[in-house]
Amino acid sequence: MQTRKEKDLIGELEVPREAYYGIHTLRARSNFAVSGFGVHPDLIWALALVKKAAATANTELGLLDRQRGAAIIQAAEELAAGMYRDQIVVDALQGGAGTSTNMNVNEVIANRAIELLGGEKGNYAIVHPLDHVNLGQSTNDVYPTALRVAAIKLVRALAQAMARLQGALQAKEKEFAGILKIGRTELQDAVPVTLGQEFGAWAEAVARDWWRLYKAEERLRQVNLGGTAVGTGLNASRRYIYRVIEILRELTGFGLARAENSFEATQNADIFAEVSGFLKTAAVNLAKIAGDLRLLSSGPRAGLAEIRLPEVQAGSSIMPGKVNPVIPEMVTQVAYQVMANDVAVNMAAASGCLELNAFLPLIAHNLLHSLTLLTNAAHLLAERCVQGIVADPGRCRELLAASQGVITAFVPYIGYEKATELVTKAVALGRPVTELLVTEGLFTQDEVAAILQPQELTTPGVAGARYFRNRRPGRNPPESER
Amino acid sequence: MQTRKEKDLIGELEVPREAYYGIHTLRARSNFAVSGFGVHPDLIWALALVKKAAATANTELGLLDRQRGAAIIQAAEELAAGMYRDQIVVDALQGGAGTSTNMNVNEVIANRAIELLGGEKGNYAIVHPLDHVNLGQSTNDVYPTALRVAAIKLVRALAQAMARLQGALQAKEKEFAGILKIGRTELQDAVPVTLGQEFGAWAEAVARDWWRLYKAEERLRQVNLGGTAVGTGLNASRRYIYRVIEILRELTGFGLARAENSFEATQNADIFAEVSGFLKTAAVNLAKIAGDLRLLSSGPRAGLAEIRLPEVQAGSSIMPGKVNPVIPEMVTQVAYQVMANDVAVNMAAASGCLELNAFLPLIAHNLLHSLTLLTNAAHLLAERCVQGIVADPGRCRELLAASQGVITAFVPYIGYEKATELVTKAVALGRPVTELLVTEGLFTQDEVAAILQPQELTTPGVAGARYFRNRRPGRNPPESER
Amino acid sequence: MQTRKEKDLIGELEVPREAYYGIHTLRARSNFAVSGFGVHPDLIWALALVKKAAATANTELGLLDRQRGAAIIQAAEELAAGMYRDQIVVDALQGGAGTSTNMNVNEVIANRAIELLGGEKGNYAIVHPLDHVNLGQSTNDVYPTALRVAAIKLVRALAQAMARLQGALQAKEKEFAGILKIGRTELQDAVPVTLGQEFGAWAEAVARDWWRLYKAEERLRQVNLGGTAVGTGLNASRRYIYRVIEILRELTGFGLARAENSFEATQNADIFAEVSGFLKTAAVNLAKIAGDLRLLSSGPRAGLAEIRLPEVQAGSSIMPGKVNPVIPEMVTQVAYQVMANDVAVNMAAASGCLELNAFLPLIAHNLLHSLTLLTNAAHLLAERCVQGIVADPGRCRELLAASQGVITAFVPYIGYEKATELVTKAVALGRPVTELLVTEGLFTQDEVAAILQPQELTTPGVAGARYFRNRRPGRNPPESER
Amino acid sequence: MQTRKEKDLIGELEVPREAYYGIHTLRARSNFAVSGFGVHPDLIWALALVKKAAATANTELGLLDRQRGAAIIQAAEELAAGMYRDQIVVDALQGGAGTSTNMNVNEVIANRAIELLGGEKGNYAIVHPLDHVNLGQSTNDVYPTALRVAAIKLVRALAQAMARLQGALQAKEKEFAGILKIGRTELQDAVPVTLGQEFGAWAEAVARDWWRLYKAEERLRQVNLGGTAVGTGLNASRRYIYRVIEILRELTGFGLARAENSFEATQNADIFAEVSGFLKTAAVNLAKIAGDLRLLSSGPRAGLAEIRLPEVQAGSSIMPGKVNPVIPEMVTQVAYQVMANDVAVNMAAASGCLELNAFLPLIAHNLLHSLTLLTNAAHLLAERCVQGIVADPGRCRELLAASQGVITAFVPYIGYEKATELVTKAVALGRPVTELLVTEGLFTQDEVAAILQPQELTTPGVAGARYFRNRRPGRNPPESER
Repeated sequence: MQTRKEKDLIGELEVPREAYYGIHTLRARSNFAVSGFGVHPDLIWALALVKKAAATANTELGLLDRQRGAAIIQAAEELAAGMYRDQIVVDALQGGAGTSTNMNVNEVIANRAIELLGGEKGNYAIVHPLDHVNLGQSTNDVYPTALRVAAIKLVRALAQAMARLQGALQAKEKEFAGILKIGRTELQDAVPVTLGQEFGAWAEAVARDWWRLYKAEERLRQVNLGGTAVGTGLNASRRYIYRVIEILRELTGFGLARAENSFEATQNADIFAEVSGFLKTAAVNLAKIAGDLRLLSSGPRAGLAEIRLPEVQAGSSIMPGKVNPVIPEMVTQVAYQVMANDVAVNMAAASGCLELNAFLPLIAHNLLHSLTLLTNAAHLLAERCVQGIVADPGRCRELLAASQGVITAFVPYIGYEKATELVTKAVALGRPVTELLVTEGLFTQDEVAAILQPQELTTPGVAGARYFRNRRPGRNPPESER
Repeated sequence: MQTRKEKDLIGELEVPREAYYGIHTLRARSNFAVSGFGVHPDLIWALALVKKAAATANTELGLLDRQRGAAIIQAAEELAAGMYRDQIVVDALQGGAGTSTNMNVNEVIANRAIELLGGEKGNYAIVHPLDHVNLGQSTNDVYPTALRVAAIKLVRALAQAMARLQGALQAKEKEFAGILKIGRTELQDAVPVTLGQEFGAWAEAVARDWWRLYKAEERLRQVNLGGTAVGTGLNASRRYIYRVIEILRELTGFGLARAENSFEATQNADIFAEVSGFLKTAAVNLAKIAGDLRLLSSGPRAGLAEIRLPEVQAGSSIMPGKVNPVIPEMVTQVAYQVMANDVAVNMAAASGCLELNAFLPLIAHNLLHSLTLLTNAAHLLAERCVQGIVADPGRCRELLAASQGVITAFVPYIGYEKATELVTKAVALGRPVTELLVTEGLFTQDEVAAILQPQELTTPGVAGARYFRNRRPGRNPPESER
Repeated sequence: MQTRKEKDLIGELEVPREAYYGIHTLRARSNFAVSGFGVHPDLIWALALVKKAAATANTELGLLDRQRGAAIIQAAEELAAGMYRDQIVVDALQGGAGTSTNMNVNEVIANRAIELLGGEKGNYAIVHPLDHVNLGQSTNDVYPTALRVAAIKLVRALAQAMARLQGALQAKEKEFAGILKIGRTELQDAVPVTLGQEFGAWAEAVARDWWRLYKAEERLRQVNLGGTAVGTGLNASRRYIYRVIEILRELTGFGLARAENSFEATQNADIFAEVSGFLKTAAVNLAKIAGDLRLLSSGPRAGLAEIRLPEVQAGSSIMPGKVNPVIPEMVTQVAYQVMANDVAVNMAAASGCLELNAFLPLIAHNLLHSLTLLTNAAHLLAERCVQGIVADPGRCRELLAASQGVITAFVPYIGYEKATELVTKAVALGRPVTELLVTEGLFTQDEVAAILQPQELTTPGVAGARYFRNRRPGRNPPESER
Repeated sequence: MQTRKEKDLIGELEVPREAYYGIHTLRARSNFAVSGFGVHPDLIWALALVKKAAATANTELGLLDRQRGAAIIQAAEELAAGMYRDQIVVDALQGGAGTSTNMNVNEVIANRAIELLGGEKGNYAIVHPLDHVNLGQSTNDVYPTALRVAAIKLVRALAQAMARLQGALQAKEKEFAGILKIGRTELQDAVPVTLGQEFGAWAEAVARDWWRLYKAEERLRQVNLGGTAVGTGLNASRRYIYRVIEILRELTGFGLARAENSFEATQNADIFAEVSGFLKTAAVNLAKIAGDLRLLSSGPRAGLAEIRLPEVQAGSSIMPGKVNPVIPEMVTQVAYQVMANDVAVNMAAASGCLELNAFLPLIAHNLLHSLTLLTNAAHLLAERCVQGIVADPGRCRELLAASQGVITAFVPYIGYEKATELVTKAVALGRPVTELLVTEGLFTQDEVAAILQPQELTTPGVAGARYFRNRRPGRNPPESER
């Protein structure tokens, strides 16, 4: 391998000649050879945009000459566009509050800019990673700013994925609106509901997640760019501070604003803990939905089997024809991972110390990956599972009939005692209790049918009350309904 | 012990004659003799209000006769007011989705109402726990509603406590605004800040918590009361449903509203996970503040010792005169407990199954206690610690001078290289670097003083730039500042 | 209220005249009015024994006069026996590394000893909380020692409860050994198992927990008593150090030993994190068992309903006759709480700083309560649930027959393709596949019966291989079986 | 891209012609495009060994012909050796209990074996992924077995890394044994200790971790290989079962044994939760050590600065010469991540359902990565930090002298009151209290020196007691020492 020599305060190192990164990156890669996980791609994207914004502002203000400025800007654009990603080689769980990620980006942009200006990589007199690319910046303002920008991008993607999942659930809510089935509380047979209502309940929870994420963006918009080392802005020009955020706002299209108090925005990480809290809440909902889907599709013959999930891959090699609920299982695991990642975010955020939180890389790793995980899981759940779910209305009817759930609807007419008596008799005879209601002369077929209307059984009030009010005034539902 | 006999479907039990609770409570107490923790007092308060609201609505609608209604209402008022709390004896970690807490409340209210009507406890023909006190209700609508009501009450108390803590921190921010000190990042000497800024940064984080809690209330206002067993409202009169929430809104003074979809509000617990997420975020901030307070007050002689915490109790028995930061230590523990409680809330909320979440009692226990813990901790932190904090400006000055932190402010004037040279020389001579700046003829005393103004060092821009612009135009701060 | 005056370095306070606690307790109670949770009773018991051991050693060594020593010993015995528990009034989540709990115990013992010697409470010249009761001790050696002693006591109780649960499960394993049923993986019908095997699998997991707890005691036996402030033993007599642990060993009957390195034992809390790790592992098992019990007993008509849990209390008020799996639900909640408590223990243990871990009270609170919770939950699960479980062999048979699970056992004889063909045909005809095996002339009734022996289907090997080997050599099971 | 057609029950897909994976992998990759994290390399290694063991056993037993067997064995060896890793493309967080990872491995081995036998990839008549590579196996026995094998390998590596870290700490314990310094409890000045003792305390905790890991291996050795679908071993030959484990034991060199109850070993995941519990305990220790290192090295001028960490990379760009404790910061983040991963493991392990735990992939991902993280972090901490730590004995002395910590050692000679008086006077005069002890005629220089011996101050007993016993009998240390 051909190498070039680079030098820092500690000494000299051989850098691969073709590498865009430099000595700082090389040291960091080796110091933090710990997780094998790279920096999240959207954090690199966001850092590249921050670098572009800074170079643009510095050029405008005459702090950077036009030629250098233009080269840095182009290099930053290329990095943002996804090029040179294999040159960002530092580990996600690095020490130093993100300094190594910032330096890796600085070095890659500098060397690419040098290249654009016709120089040889490593000739930092042409473009310097610190003096030019990092000009007016500190890791402590650049990194938290980029983290917020990356998070906003991913929050928007997640909100969109949740909206899509909500849509898929609502389509099924509508499709299954007429399928009456037994509701279950504590896994015990309860009262009738519709299958549509169950999908509707999931959709509603997902809708709240969507809304939470929409609000989360508001929290992330306040950036501390320009705050330099501790947020006080020491040595940064006021004109630069205002301009750089303005440019970053334009580049991202996000409504970024300067934090009212950059000093506190540099050290406090509660906003990330809060957003992570929204993510674990979304995870809670996905876990609930995934669990219900697995339960309702259990079987095919010895389970509930009220719905069938689409078959997306073969099941067991040893048990032919077995189909497993693999998409909901994946979703459950994602949910658990996100809930666990939240614990890491909390511990890191709580461990901020005085003017800085040194553990921002851990926060970034867990927060951004939670966002990606949830986004992908929501998409896959919508497309590979919910959309293809088929109901088994016959099975729903069968289980509803087998259960004594419908009898509750007749209680307002015949009282608890008579209801209990009929259920007991029906069980003994092995007949549906609804049959007995007619054969014992308590109701006509039409009346039973009127009470058993899905709409009547699954919305507030005494089932059939309006029917009786109109047709058979003598048959009284409870006082308050009249 | 004198007893009375009570009976349920399982059989007969002896209940202490004077007990207001009955057989359902007795069974539950023994089935769930597990944690020794009682039901949170504010959940009892909220349940009592729900019972009062239901009895009032039922009486108005003629579903309950006036005499019984009045007795139930009075009994519920007494329970809400704090009476008979020793009669609520079921365990916090009960199974059954809260049924046992609901039944304990029903029985206590029934027996107190019987007493008010001149009957003997246990004579449920007079007032029945289910037929009268629980009329039109199900645990599944009553319990989640009461949990929301209790949470709102406690969220308001916590918001108030956080506002008070914020006020205490802001008072110190103002008091210490002029005390210049060394800022520290990653526990290493960085650049100058003011002690006031540090208190201001804590205050800002606490202010965000206050705002989050304020928003949390919005989420909690949608109640599923009237939804009965699974939220569909089966067998509940529409008029009752609308009326009971209206009355509860009046009783609590909280802006409660009927959930748009009671079916989903009965089964989804994400709102509690979300609110718990706000609490763990507040905990993150309190842990950060408490850690900083312990660090800044470390010493008294071999630590940082920039501030002194008020002495609230004696320290060690073996080391005379030792004073420990016991209030921040308590706060840290509260923060960790709240972060842990959040994990319990998440797991419980994620484990909801179909039409109900059976683990609401676990959610209630952890959520309500987290609220209480944070409220008390914030009050104690404000009153017993922050308010009494005394700064040691001399120590702050001494450490700032010892550090080379101020030299950064001179870099724009003399360049990094000269700055580094001077620092090295100052360290060798054991003199403050600011002295050398004068003795070496680089600056006058006045110029050094102008740069070292706290305001200049701790706000954006090049320190002293305006001074030099006016007095000594030849002395150039960087281009962009001119 | 009558009061007496007490004084410390901070000033004077009025203490209730009848109180056994004193001024230090009073200050602490008010400083830490935060959780409302008291100190765990077994920690008080353990502290009382430590005090007794210290007083005994000090008396023997002549450091404490016999009269005072005897009074302190008696007072400590009384406290250990459960008296004066209402006098231990400090909060569980106190700051100060346990100093306030230690002082509360010191003051109560001192005042009771004063009383025994005929003095007036508060007259500390007679017996002094620090000079006499705490003689030779520091909170930093007393508190961690007592925490270990309390933990051993509770670990033993939990081990016993787990053994009992294991026994109950094994009794059912035996009882249900002959009940063949469909096994389920990923909630989908798989291959036959026996109901007994399911209970056996739970029993095995619980047996491992028992063994882990047995080993946990080993870890807890090393105590740092005698280490004083930081474990170096400064100012403590060597003879006292050896003697006090010897006495404590006798008093407790636990195999306590002096930590080889008391310095490290004073500051490191990893042992508590490890034991808490065993507890969360036990919680994992209990959650798994409780979940399975709820699932297998789901129904009664529209669920799996393979087993019936004993009815321990009435279910719903609105749905007559509903019985809920309340004991497993309680167990699940306990499991989640213990898993969450482990997170608190971890954070606290990780936050030890230099010579001490100030957050031992949080560790104590969570660790000891997790132990109590699991012990009670295991007992209740055994007694109120497992012991009374009834199987529904008919339902098990019905679901097994409905499923195609048994066909897998015939695959070695007829191949996957023929098996698949038969299953398809059986489903189309609505007949059991085992019937077709005979009607199609593939097997005789006896042969099918031989293959379907529970023992054959649910133990390693090809079902029926021995039968065929003996009776019908031409009917070949796979090569390796011959 | 050239493709080949493959088919499964769902339909046909185009597979890249050169791919070793097949249609099952292709579907799974797309179904689980969720985390972007691949399967842990050591899990692939372990699966390849299991496949080799199975092929060997099957060949020996005549279930697989020699030619096919040999080709599969070679292909498995190559995969184990690290080849074709880019062909294992399924996501770590897959649904299906590991089926997709197993199938990916089956397909890669099959196609490589086909290639070895001169066939074209995809021609599964030559070697079939299921019929030949997976012969006698089920994901449900293969995957948990491989997970245990991978975990043992990584546990051993971690144990070694911990031993190395322990060694590095012990070397410093020895090197710094004579450096007396102030001990701190609750961040407040306490009593003297040696710097060596502090390193020794860390070493001791790490030694316990080493021992725990050593024991962890015992738990992991029981494998359920041969249990097939649910652990009952249905359709697996007994001879195969015994033989395959024997071969796997030889291949790995690990003391593997057949689980006594394979049925329970298939469904229970508590062993992974237990091992993860050991890992979070190790994390607790690493976090404690890393925190202490950061604190003791704080400064360089305005912190404690008792030690200096080696400089492994440049610090801040904006603050020249700043060196940050980046290795301990990395270690802290690793510790937090491992503690969070434990939460994911717990939730997954607790969610096992009946005969299987579908969430083993989540357990594998978190458990194996925690092992890798800790191993790397321990190595880096030892090599890049601990080994290069330099003490500042002068600073240690200075802070000890400034503190009043030494006075505690004189209390047994002069009493608390006199001690307090002297400290007050020393503070007022700005002189070391040890000077006053001489000038006030209480001790000679030699006597003070005898008491201030590091050995005397930092080991049990009254400092200097032996000296006085021999030289100056009239100078009495406490009674018990004589």
